[in-house]
Amino acid sequence: MTRWALLLEYDGTPFVGWQRQITGLSVQEVLETAAAKLNRDVPVTSTVAGRTDAGVHAEAQVAQLELPSNIPAPKVRDALNFHMKPHPVVVLHAVEAPDGWNARFSAINRAYRYRILNRRARPALLVGRVWHVHAPLDPAAMHEAAQTLLGRHDFSSFRAAACQANSPLRTLDRLDVRNDGDMIEIIAEARSFLHHQVRNMVGTLKLVGEGSWPMERVATALTARNRSAAGPTAPPDGLCLTGVRYPIDPFSDC
Amino acid sequence: MTRWALLLEYDGTPFVGWQRQITGLSVQEVLETAAAKLNRDVPVTSTVAGRTDAGVHAEAQVAQLELPSNIPAPKVRDALNFHMKPHPVVVLHAVEAPDGWNARFSAINRAYRYRILNRRARPALLVGRVWHVHAPLDPAAMHEAAQTLLGRHDFSSFRAAACQANSPLRTLDRLDVRNDGDMIEIIAEARSFLHHQVRNMVGTLKLVGEGSWPMERVATALTARNRSAAGPTAPPDGLCLTGVRYPIDPFSDC
Repeated sequence: MTRWALLLEYDGTPFVGWQRQITGLSVQEVLETAAAKLNRDVPVTSTVAGRTDAGVHAEAQVAQLELPSNIPAPKVRDALNFHMKPHPVVVLHAVEAPDGWNARFSAINRAYRYRILNRRARPALLVGRVWHVHAPLDPAAMHEAAQTLLGRHDFSSFRAAACQANSPLRTLDRLDVRNDGDMIEIIAEARSFLHHQVRNMVGTLKLVGEGSWPMERVATALTARNRSAAGPTAPPDGLCLTGVRYPIDPFSDC
Repeated sequence: MTRWALLLEYDGTPFVGWQRQITGLSVQEVLETAAAKLNRDVPVTSTVAGRTDAGVHAEAQVAQLELPSNIPAPKVRDALNFHMKPHPVVVLHAVEAPDGWNARFSAINRAYRYRILNRRARPALLVGRVWHVHAPLDPAAMHEAAQTLLGRHDFSSFRAAACQANSPLRTLDRLDVRNDGDMIEIIAEARSFLHHQVRNMVGTLKLVGEGSWPMERVATALTARNRSAAGPTAPPDGLCLTGVRYPIDPFSDC
């Protein structure tokens, strides 16, 4: 068998999320069902860098799985894409995984982008791709408040009850808020995130942006280590996994 | 009555185009049906800057229509948006039209963007928003060929048979081809375009990009003044009306 590293793009809208669930179709099921077709219909199990939630998108998700040897890389990509039709999931690149590399555990950085469309009119072109907030937000205040979350902290206040991580400690490397006209983009980077962490941080920063919270309250919410001290969870629509970094990038030659 | 200038965004996918057709729902019908609700159900007629085709999108279309006086501008915008639900058409801004201004005839420049996704994998996130071309294209060659179309010419070779314009003469002010990774963007600007002109120019430049045509053949196609001398019509999905300019911009204060 050959272990493959796959770079994936998907629209999260029609899925229950990355992970298999009995409640509906997952991205994982779409990928593994296609992979089984290249494995004499024997089930294939994949590992993924970021287990995105229902409705969350990916421009550059990374997964790994094993397939019978001697299938050339372009064939792996094109055959998986063929079998994943018509679902909005595609393999951008397939490369043989480096020795000892693991899509999930070798990752040293995950980057997410959250987009808020901040205007009166609902979105016509970006339905399902943005959080539509019609009250005017102050992106500069949101950015300043965001900086108080950087570094290594107990992020219990921003952690979903269902989170399965052993520890609430995470190191947040980047949380930038910037805007281009009425589009506000929040860029979050860390080695790893707790369940709903990005959406809970965004839902909290929105309270600052609309003036409901003074920006100092974000640091207070963090030190409370209590989910009820922070703001609500932002909807999944605006969230997209934009990249995963490894000490050795498997896709550097693509 | 008060004449309003409206800035509109829409997803062209579900429509037969801007203009009313008996074959299906048009953007015009969605807008005018909503406007009639603000006019005691008396039909309202709109005029538009760019009559986009079926499947063509707009980020900044401009239309005008008349409504009973004394409705404040925010109410015009919000009420039209309410009545246009759930169709993917929204009014971004509504302002009282300047004296003598006409959405169509006062326009001095129309800008369109055409996007080609140039990679093996079909789009997952940009379905209906790009032309997917999987053979590798050379955007630099496409750009160089595009420059031979600039200026005032008889564009009969790039004009749809159904075009209703009196003259095939148009002045093309800009036709830039650039790329960011596998996304190729073509920016076209002119006072006005013939029917299908942008899509026919893009379909022709694609022949240059894939190496089927030497770039000199684009100029030859132009001088032939014959539709059969140029390339095929690119699909509507990649096309978006991105802006309309006027000597006095009605939306300058928005």
